[in-house]
Amino acid sequence: MTRVPKIYLAGPDVFLEDAVAMGQRKKALCAHYGFEGLYPLDDNGERNRADVRQDLFIYRACVTHMRAADLAIFNLTPFRGASADAGTVFELGYFVGLGKPVFAYTNDAEDLIDRVKRSGETARDAATGDWRDAMGMSIEDFGNADNLMIDMALYEQHHPIIRHAARPEERFTDLTGFEACLRHAAKVLSSEST
Amino acid sequence: MTRVPKIYLAGPDVFLEDAVAMGQRKKALCAHYGFEGLYPLDDNGERNRADVRQDLFIYRACVTHMRAADLAIFNLTPFRGASADAGTVFELGYFVGLGKPVFAYTNDAEDLIDRVKRSGETARDAATGDWRDAMGMSIEDFGNADNLMIDMALYEQHHPIIRHAARPEERFTDLTGFEACLRHAAKVLSSEST
Repeated sequence: MTRVPKIYLAGPDVFLEDAVAMGQRKKALCAHYGFEGLYPLDDNGERNRADVRQDLFIYRACVTHMRAADLAIFNLTPFRGASADAGTVFELGYFVGLGKPVFAYTNDAEDLIDRVKRSGETARDAATGDWRDAMGMSIEDFGNADNLMIDMALYEQHHPIIRHAARPEERFTDLTGFEACLRHAAKVLSSEST
Repeated sequence: MTRVPKIYLAGPDVFLEDAVAMGQRKKALCAHYGFEGLYPLDDNGERNRADVRQDLFIYRACVTHMRAADLAIFNLTPFRGASADAGTVFELGYFVGLGKPVFAYTNDAEDLIDRVKRSGETARDAATGDWRDAMGMSIEDFGNADNLMIDMALYEQHHPIIRHAARPEERFTDLTGFEACLRHAAKVLSSEST
């Protein structure tokens, strides 16, 4: 490969207090494995003088990064609930829609259903065997880390979600799974270029 | 338009106890407005004799429906947390990635930040003015219904999310917002064909 492949760095990392520092850590790791990282906050300096509303400006900047990227790594660590951050999940769908390679990790090793069971009242339907939550909505029981659309999008590309049981205080900062994704991506791209 | 446009019907509706009946209600409304509805469970009969794992079979069936659809309507009602169902959000990203028209409704009229504030400990950072949750992660404060990637994807297409304050017992069955999306879609498509 003659040019440095670009990786879009998706995740709730942007909500951290030191979000910019996290981007720098991830971009340094990308460089170590022969990639260039594109981080959603890279445009930060431009944001305050934009002539469009700030949320639209951020959306357009992320879309621009995603279209420029050759692949993406998603931090799917559950965020304020049993599932991954909604913005990150949107971007995963967007990349799959574009037909680009996706890799992902989560810092929570549990199955989705175990988190849902712990978060509130659940019951098993005697007739069908389905698990249901307090609203009567069925709970997926496939042994996946998240909703099946998420897990299967990655499985279908032969890059299943890498699950890593991070320490609670490092839930949103542990980069073990991120680095495993980088190694996997480097291997996939080098085998494609030979 | 010479053929009937196909609408993919995305949402946590598939988790309802009477999920198939909900699909029939939505498809009948689609037909009333001149559309054909494609519902994720339409393949139900095939599911049990598939030679692949069931979650992968469902994923592939949904992808097939999404690729066949001309547009989609998303039920973004918050699901087990402050944000929409993760599978639905994945599909929204997928459609936007494909460049197809998307419409959406939610049966919760509140802003994302108000749901997050009510769900747990939050505090305002005196220095930056940012709201942060108990994990120290910032909370978006743009007056949006959900993560900005979701709201802005729809805003960018000039079909902002339709918010409807459904009664609590009809949170996942009220179709007022869905029908408003159908009317909007019918108007958009008829103006494009003239």
